[in-house]
Amino acid sequence: MGETTVTDTTKGGKAVSPLAPASFPTLPAIDGVRFAAGAVGIKYQDRVDVMLAHVAAESTIAGVFTRSATRSAAVLDCQAKLARLSGEEGFAIVVNSGNSNTFTGKRGVTDVDLIAQAAADALGLPPSRVFTSSTGVIGEPLPAQKITAALPELARMLDVAGAEPAARAIMTTDTFPKGAVAHVDVDGTPVKIMGFAKGSGMIAPDMATMLGYIFTDAAIAPDALQQMLSTCNIASFNAVTVDSDTSTSDTVLIAATGRAGNPLITAPHAAFQAALLDVMQDLAHQIVRDGEGATKFVEVRVSGAETEADADRVARAIANSPLVKTAIAGEDPNWGRIVMAVGKSGAVADRDRLTIRFGDILVAENGWRAESYTEDAGATYMKQAELLIDVDLGLGDGAATVWTCDLTHGYIQINADYRS
Amino acid sequence: MGETTVTDTTKGGKAVSPLAPASFPTLPAIDGVRFAAGAVGIKYQDRVDVMLAHVAAESTIAGVFTRSATRSAAVLDCQAKLARLSGEEGFAIVVNSGNSNTFTGKRGVTDVDLIAQAAADALGLPPSRVFTSSTGVIGEPLPAQKITAALPELARMLDVAGAEPAARAIMTTDTFPKGAVAHVDVDGTPVKIMGFAKGSGMIAPDMATMLGYIFTDAAIAPDALQQMLSTCNIASFNAVTVDSDTSTSDTVLIAATGRAGNPLITAPHAAFQAALLDVMQDLAHQIVRDGEGATKFVEVRVSGAETEADADRVARAIANSPLVKTAIAGEDPNWGRIVMAVGKSGAVADRDRLTIRFGDILVAENGWRAESYTEDAGATYMKQAELLIDVDLGLGDGAATVWTCDLTHGYIQINADYRS
Repeated sequence: MGETTVTDTTKGGKAVSPLAPASFPTLPAIDGVRFAAGAVGIKYQDRVDVMLAHVAAESTIAGVFTRSATRSAAVLDCQAKLARLSGEEGFAIVVNSGNSNTFTGKRGVTDVDLIAQAAADALGLPPSRVFTSSTGVIGEPLPAQKITAALPELARMLDVAGAEPAARAIMTTDTFPKGAVAHVDVDGTPVKIMGFAKGSGMIAPDMATMLGYIFTDAAIAPDALQQMLSTCNIASFNAVTVDSDTSTSDTVLIAATGRAGNPLITAPHAAFQAALLDVMQDLAHQIVRDGEGATKFVEVRVSGAETEADADRVARAIANSPLVKTAIAGEDPNWGRIVMAVGKSGAVADRDRLTIRFGDILVAENGWRAESYTEDAGATYMKQAELLIDVDLGLGDGAATVWTCDLTHGYIQINADYRS
Repeated sequence: MGETTVTDTTKGGKAVSPLAPASFPTLPAIDGVRFAAGAVGIKYQDRVDVMLAHVAAESTIAGVFTRSATRSAAVLDCQAKLARLSGEEGFAIVVNSGNSNTFTGKRGVTDVDLIAQAAADALGLPPSRVFTSSTGVIGEPLPAQKITAALPELARMLDVAGAEPAARAIMTTDTFPKGAVAHVDVDGTPVKIMGFAKGSGMIAPDMATMLGYIFTDAAIAPDALQQMLSTCNIASFNAVTVDSDTSTSDTVLIAATGRAGNPLITAPHAAFQAALLDVMQDLAHQIVRDGEGATKFVEVRVSGAETEADADRVARAIANSPLVKTAIAGEDPNWGRIVMAVGKSGAVADRDRLTIRFGDILVAENGWRAESYTEDAGATYMKQAELLIDVDLGLGDGAATVWTCDLTHGYIQINADYRS
């Protein structure tokens, strides 16, 4: 399959987000990782909707997942398999779009097992080493047999150069595929990190999910890999919000093949972790840039909080406030709504110590609009596509940054009419 | 002033919400309470924008307020005065619309004092017995002298029949005035409860605020009055949400004149409290019905949670979810989004014990769509203007109900363009 079948990845010819990156990066081959993608007709006939990844023996793997209490059968299965992992055989990852296999009862569990068994058979692996994700509509039975029937052919087609079709196969309401790359020197050995992701909202409409898959040729022990993934996740995928709605299927997996030949990383490694964070932030920002109806990319930076947790609370209260997000959509420098969001966050705050800036423009301080601030300056700033809202609580050292987008008519259109 | 000046209470001729009650109730005179309202030109020239209430000596008063960390100078002043209240002189309440006097620094505090002093002078009261509220734009200095100059005239006009103009004077983006009445027998004595409120969103756009003022001729000791108000507030004003945004100025005051002559209520009184809850729920529901852009009134009823707090968390997660609210706007019976909201709420939940109903229609149970459920039945139900979403978690006895509205293009229109 490969390039030739990648004909209809944007559903219904939806326009690409105005905030999309100029181009999709070239995803380098990672020694030990091969991909295949195909169209099996889960929801749309001519759409590439399944991807298979194979990771060579002696690799390591780690994952982070949604904390939703109604998480999907596939997420529960991945978590159970990661917890019990042993041996040095390879891994497989199977992902389908078009159906999330969520809230599908006992049948959903059986379908995960069927897919894992079929991939295991096709690749000569135990099913305990096959990880699956499903993204798409909630509450419809997954046509698993369409996937299992295609797996032998997908296994034959596996190729080190197949990452881009794989990145496209996992898209749902995404308007562009999302990929990122980093090169980093690990103690004298050059290693590569490559990843792709999907998501168009923390949960896209019915299309449960943010998914991310990251691959590196570095040699990393499982505990160190998990620790670095979890740490980077806090400041990347966990630091973006489109609409505050958390999916039932969010999954990020990372696999490390060790083929680069670096000395085994057995504890968090500063240079590698910094490069991994770059890749994960890049992917997370692309998800925000593809936020449903988004016309503005917004960084909310909070400092001076009593604690990190308070800073995070304030940043999320601002980033998730419908009133703040609609003001941004209207290019209205409505800083009163930011004061409101700080107040409702639950964090310790003192109105009279609060400083608010739009980019470099001082807007408010000492419990009052800044003397130097003019509505004209604020209104001009708001016309930009990339905005920084900077809030200093003036109380302590707690800081946090989250990224979000505006709330527009486009969001309402997409979500009020999605299933019909 | 009175009726003749009540000419332009709906700003810019905005259409009345399709969910508005058929008519404004006749607010009965409460012996010991008098009202006046007038147009002083705070934001709009011809709009009634200030109300004065006077409550006779030997009355009691209680209040509940926003917990926002950035609450307004007027809220802080009310809270301080209530905490230190002594003596048996009367009270005054002064409310203006058009400017919230929030985030206005030290000047905001001075303006509250100026208004309280002017009302005190006009009525022969100590300023410590004058309570003020302000609602409207955030961050603009309040033209307090317009209010203080009008107070002597307003004091002369006080009348027991002036409640309706008062109810109109406190409106901001509200499309209709909100009033409610109850009659209740207290140990053989008939007493009246009457109240009015404003709000069009938990916070209307820039128009910080939900305000409510309730009056009764019952004789109630201050502690019992505060206790009943706080209890009823949980299941009324605190149980509605339009957009999850909490205002900096939310205030509810209740005054009891004792003129009905009932034996003094010194502890929560079942019949009185039930009637008070009726009045407060009625007002709270009217606020939801006037939610910005609302076309549907939605009750979210959660039962079977492990605790009350968990039930409340689930109900609010559903009621505040942009994906649930946009689905309702689109008349889409999208129960998958309800599953998602339950999952993200943070409450203990078991996917396989969850039961979801739309009104009497069983939608999902046992981790699966109900056998009897059809999309047609769901779609027909969603066309109604008043909806019930009923979720049973199947775990315990915790229950909670919240009320909300849908999220529509109207909300985006109002909030993206409000200040311009």
